[in-house]
Order: sequence, then structure tokens, then C-alpha cells
Amino acid sequence: MSTLDPSAAVAGREALARDIFDALESQTHDGIGITRASYGPGEQAARDIMAEAAGTLDMAVEDDAAGNVYMTLPGADRSAAPIVIGSHIDSVAQGGNFDGAAGVVSGLVACAGLKDAGITPPRDIRVMGIRAEESAWFGVSYIGSRSALGTLPEGALDEARRADTGRSLADHMEEAGCDPQALRDGQVYLPPDNLHAYLEVHIEQGPVLEAEDFPVGIVTGIRGNRRLPRARCIGEYSHCGGVPRSHRLDAVIATSELVTALDAVWDECEADGKDFAFTIGKFFTDAEWHAMTKIAGAVEFSLDMRSLDGDFVEAMTGRVRDLAATIAERRGVTFELGEFTRAAPGPMDPAIKAGMAEGARTLGMKTMDIASGASHDAAAFAAAGVPTQMLFIRNANGSHNPDEAMEIADFMEATRLLAWWLANRAA
Amino acid sequence: MSTLDPSAAVAGREALARDIFDALESQTHDGIGITRASYGPGEQAARDIMAEAAGTLDMAVEDDAAGNVYMTLPGADRSAAPIVIGSHIDSVAQGGNFDGAAGVVSGLVACAGLKDAGITPPRDIRVMGIRAEESAWFGVSYIGSRSALGTLPEGALDEARRADTGRSLADHMEEAGCDPQALRDGQVYLPPDNLHAYLEVHIEQGPVLEAEDFPVGIVTGIRGNRRLPRARCIGEYSHCGGVPRSHRLDAVIATSELVTALDAVWDECEADGKDFAFTIGKFFTDAEWHAMTKIAGAVEFSLDMRSLDGDFVEAMTGRVRDLAATIAERRGVTFELGEFTRAAPGPMDPAIKAGMAEGARTLGMKTMDIASGASHDAAAFAAAGVPTQMLFIRNANGSHNPDEAMEIADFMEATRLLAWWLANRAA
Repeated sequence: MSTLDPSAAVAGREALARDIFDALESQTHDGIGITRASYGPGEQAARDIMAEAAGTLDMAVEDDAAGNVYMTLPGADRSAAPIVIGSHIDSVAQGGNFDGAAGVVSGLVACAGLKDAGITPPRDIRVMGIRAEESAWFGVSYIGSRSALGTLPEGALDEARRADTGRSLADHMEEAGCDPQALRDGQVYLPPDNLHAYLEVHIEQGPVLEAEDFPVGIVTGIRGNRRLPRARCIGEYSHCGGVPRSHRLDAVIATSELVTALDAVWDECEADGKDFAFTIGKFFTDAEWHAMTKIAGAVEFSLDMRSLDGDFVEAMTGRVRDLAATIAERRGVTFELGEFTRAAPGPMDPAIKAGMAEGARTLGMKTMDIASGASHDAAAFAAAGVPTQMLFIRNANGSHNPDEAMEIADFMEATRLLAWWLANRAA
Repeated sequence: MSTLDPSAAVAGREALARDIFDALESQTHDGIGITRASYGPGEQAARDIMAEAAGTLDMAVEDDAAGNVYMTLPGADRSAAPIVIGSHIDSVAQGGNFDGAAGVVSGLVACAGLKDAGITPPRDIRVMGIRAEESAWFGVSYIGSRSALGTLPEGALDEARRADTGRSLADHMEEAGCDPQALRDGQVYLPPDNLHAYLEVHIEQGPVLEAEDFPVGIVTGIRGNRRLPRARCIGEYSHCGGVPRSHRLDAVIATSELVTALDAVWDECEADGKDFAFTIGKFFTDAEWHAMTKIAGAVEFSLDMRSLDGDFVEAMTGRVRDLAATIAERRGVTFELGEFTRAAPGPMDPAIKAGMAEGARTLGMKTMDIASGASHDAAAFAAAGVPTQMLFIRNANGSHNPDEAMEIADFMEATRLLAWWLANRAA
């Protein structure tokens, strides 16, 4: 079977990519890093830059009630279920230029390449600039994509408040020219069963591709998570000189034991080839009560556990409760873990993934399979039942900081693979 | 050998003890607990109450340049080296009525008993109300006793500042009518080589006598300590979703591992019958940087290690550094432990201790040997080479809080033993 190769045409559009990234950088730099607050001016500027670039490609531009922008390359059959290529256009405060935006630019450049190569895809390709993916602003993830899919949790519009302003999501949406009332009324811009596929290109937020020397990663799945935002261990404050070991109720030792026990579980998982990660991002004694010569009567901590295997990470919640109960029993402390929050894993579509792997082989491109530990809009599409696939771009220095470092050459490789798939596997 | 038994005479002075405790309670209660700030009004009130009680016993009252008060029961040989019975008359803020003061009252009641029984001790007995033992106020321990002994660290008078006022120790001393200049000039009120013995009765600050059901403990020694006031573990902050285990530099896991490793060392010590205790009173991630979904890049913690064996606790500092180095090596973090502060153990005098045990047997009194984990003025006397012995009184609910609960009956038992020793073993 012969395949179409839009590589040369895509390569010819490197300048478009550079221009968009430069415009984003100059218009949304805050002096330290990039700030594109959800429904704030930086996000709006990013929307306008993308829409303007799409205009130069004669792609139709349309916004939905949540402010997501869609830029469409028409397909041969306009009535066929479209393919959405999306990523988010907001950023964390003082973040980097590529986290999110690179995926939208990749979609635009891929469409430009197809157009330049004279390839008409079998169905519409809609490049989607997604609003409000970062939970840092409203404490809610995937606001734009879930609004489009009709899966935003009830109440979020009026209850979620932006961390910096204290004002509601609906209020900020209205200020940005969106129509939250239409969302309240049940308007669904992207009915999931009328989508052929969702594709997302994103910079890797970790160091794996860099360390393993691959420009592009084909994502195997997005890890689901279980979290304890505010767990506590309660012991008893007492004078460390006077109280013998048998009478100590030491919250620091008990919590440390839980941490090292979870680390041992992680050892087991690695030995068994089981995907798992846990993080205790917060662990602190009470600044008002703790002292060098006082046994710690309380520790507060957070827990984040992730796995590609939803059943496994769910089972781990029971394991955590069991470990805590055993330690509590032996040490006389109490663990107040609270309830676990839950996010399901986002599975990738096996057929699309196989197609991407075939494309990489055909193009002689070095790729590696990689799990996504971080969350992405793709998880919202996968959860809604849309066949979904992500590609990662190598990126040094992590994300959510001004030092993220994606090479344009790596970005162009991922875009070349995306364009190949659109040209050959979009039927 | 026949012995003198002042028990009945001591018992007859229970009312004196109650009166002094009542006066202390009513004059130094702050509404929540007892507050007798070092060189503050509560401590001054305690000094006056003790001096007034001594006056009713015809004991001469004298103050030294640091404001310590001495109440003397004359002995048969006025030129012989005296015995000092001391304890502190300050308290922590919102503390209890008995921590410190009980030892001075015990000395006064014992002297009253001897006097009532017509027993003249072979040498002077000087009951000492000691200033400023609690390090909570000036960040320096044993200010009064070390001023009297000539062992107060250089510079403390002018450099130590009271936590609540910010004013210097010398300033507060002057305000309380003391003479810091005399101390600067090298005046030593109690030359250590002219003291026959130092005795101190104190409430136990832990639960051991209560749990083991003994009214009185004979102290086996005061633990020395090594401390890290402000140790740090430095890892690297990164997104917990993106960074695989092999690339994590997790300061929480590394520090937790150090804590559990030290707990395992404690297991060893218990198995070997080695006196040891450690406390991590503070353990905290950085409130400005930590987050549930961020690998912790830094932890700050404190460490307090104690043992009756000075060489052992010194060797433990090396063990801590080795453990930290091993963990740092394996986990890629850095431990910035800082320097250990050092306090030598305070050994008790074997002959006095044997005499106390003999007294308990003679009096049919149930006592137990008990190590002092907490620090006391007795450590300053022992460090100066004075033969030293402490007795503990059973006390529920710990110390340094308004709920400390010493029974007068237990106090009278300890005082009876003290009086027996003075009557029979003071030669």
C-alpha cells in the first residue's frame, strides 16, 4: 500500500510555527515567564494569534459558548464526523511558552502542510484552541474541553472561583465574551459520538525523551489518579526529654513510616512491571505548635497516586488505608486520611496508536512509547468515549516554568508524524 | 547503725507546703496557666513567697548578683562546705505551678522538718530559689545556676534577648534589681569546689512514675543531647505527573527514610540496653513552594538526640551523618545538616544515690530508678563538678502545661526522703 508523504510540505511551514511561537512569547510574557490565565488576557491573546494564523490558511474560524476556538480544514466529506486536533491555550502563572500552545500550533502547521501538498483529508479536521485546562486557576481541570463535550461537572460555572481574583468561572467567561448561560442550558458543541478522533500533541512535562534521546513519544495512556489533598496524622505533643519511647505518640515517625512503606510498595510495583507512582508533595508539622524539643502531635500531608491501570490505583487506596491502620495501631496515633479524589485513566486508541507507530516507521522516525503521568485535555475526550491519541515532544527542564526548552526541530518531527497520520489514516 | 527519722516532723509541715503552693498559684496565674517569666514579675513574686516562708522558719535570706535567693538552715559547722538544695522559680508561659517551684518548697519543708525534729545538720543547708532556668525565655538554659557557679557563657548577659520583649538579659536583670555588672566582673557566689553537694527535687516531666506506680524516682543521670536545630534536605521540585522515579529527587521520601532509619537505630539501642532517644519535632515542606502535585524539592527538620552516655550520643552524630550520606547518594538529594549543638550528660553522684536508696529502704518507701531525659539546673552543678543528685516526684499530664498534676502526698514522700538524707548522710 502506497502512502502519502506530506513531510516536505510540513517542513516548508517551519516559519509559520516560529512566527506563532514568537507572537505568543512577545504578547504573553509577564517579565519572568509566560502567563495566560484561564479566561484572562494572555489566553485571549493566544486565541487571537491562532485565529489570525488560521485566517492566513483560509481555515474557517469559529468559537463555542465556552470560548474554545475551532479552525477548520475542510475534508472531502463535510458531513463525516470530524477529527479534532486540540490542546490548551492557557498556561500557569510564570510558565513556559510551549505547554499547551505547541499542540494547537502543531495542528495548524500540519493542516498547512496538507494544504500545501494538495492533500484533502477524507473528513474535516478541526484544530481546537482549548480554554482553561490548567487547574491552577479555577481548581478544576479541562474546563474548556469538558464544556465543549458537555461533561463539565454541575455547579462548576458558578462555584469555581479563580485563585487570583476570587471571581466565579461564569463571571470570567462572560468577561471574555463567552456564553455560560448556553452551557447551563445544556448546549454541547462537540457531541462525543459525532467525533471520529481526538489527537493532541504536547510537550513532555518530564525528562524521559530527553534522557532516552527520542524527539517524539507515542503516548500509551494517561494515568488515572487517586489523591488525598489534606490527610492528617494525629499523635500527642509532649516534652521530648520526659517521655519514654513506649509512651510517645509521634506523628512525624508514624507519617515517615507510611511514606517509606509506600516507597516499598513502589519497589514491588517496579519488580512486577506494574505502572505506579506516588508523591507526598506536602508533609508538615504545625508551625504554631512544633518545637525541636517537643514530640510532634500532628502532621498534615498530601498524597497523589497514579497508574495507567485504574483498577490497580483504586486498589491502592485500600492498601494505603491498611498501611495507615497498621501503623496507627502500633504507634498509637490516628490517621485522618479523608476521602480520595478520583480521576480515571485516559486510555489511548489502539488503532490510532498503531497507525502512528506505522507512520514513524515509514518516515524513518525514532519514537518511543511513553506513559503520560500528567493530565491533559485528551483525558476528557477519552473519558467521553472519543478515540484519542497523544504525541509528546521532547522538552528539557520540565514544564510549568519559564525554562521549558522545546527544540523547533523536535516540534517539526512530531508535526510531520501528525500530518502523515492525517494524510493516510483519517478515513 | 541507728538513723534519725524526721518523717513525723516533715509530715507536720504539710500545711506549709500547701500554703506556699496556694500563694504561688494565686499570685502567678495568668488566666490560663502559670507564667513566671525569667526576671519577670511572676518569678519575682515566687522569690518573695519563698523568702517570706523562710522568714517564718528563721532562715537567713540572701540574694546573689543574678537574683538567686538563698535561705539558710545553719549547720553545726558553719565553716564547712554547704549543701545546696535548689530548683528554679521561673516557668514557661502558661505552664504549671509545680515545675521548678516544687523543688524549692521541698527544700524549705525538709529544713522545717529537721528544725522541728531538733536535728541540726552537720553543715549549712542552703535552699536556693534559682532564676531563669527555662530556655524558652532567653534561649539560654540554667542562667541563674550558671551565674552563681561562674559558668554562664561569655556574652550571654548582653547577647541573649527575651523572646517576648526583645530586651537583653542584663537589661532584665537590672530591672529585677540584680547586678549584671558584678557578674561581668567575675563575681562567683557559689564557688563549685566549696560545695559539699547539690540536691534537686523536681516533678517528673514524663509519665513513667505514674505508669509504673511509684510516688518517687531516684534519678540515675541527666541525659546529654546533640541537636540539629535547622537541618535541610534539598531535592528538586518537579511535576509529579511527568517525572519518572529514576529522575525524582524527592526530599520528603529521603527525609522520611532518615527518620525511619533512626527509628531502627533506636530499636537496636533498646535491644542492646543502650540509653537513647531521638525526636524530630519539626519536619516541613516549604509552604510557599509545596503542592499536592509537585515532588518536594526541600524539607526542613530538627533533630534532638539524647543519652545518659555522652560518648554514645557523640558517636550517634557520626551515625546520623553516615545515614544521611548513604540516603543522599542513593536518592540524589543533598542533606545540609549543619553543626550539632552539644550538651554533656549530668551524672549523678553514686554515693548520694546509694544513700537515697538506703533512705528509701529504711523508710519503707517505694522508689524506682529513673533517667532524666529533660534538662535541669542539676546538670549545671554536675558539669561544674559538684556531687549532685535529683529526686523526681510522680506527675500526671506532663509538664510545661496548666494540667500538670502532682499530688501533695507524693510531694511529701519525696521531701521525707530528702529530709532523711539530710539528717543522716550530710556529714
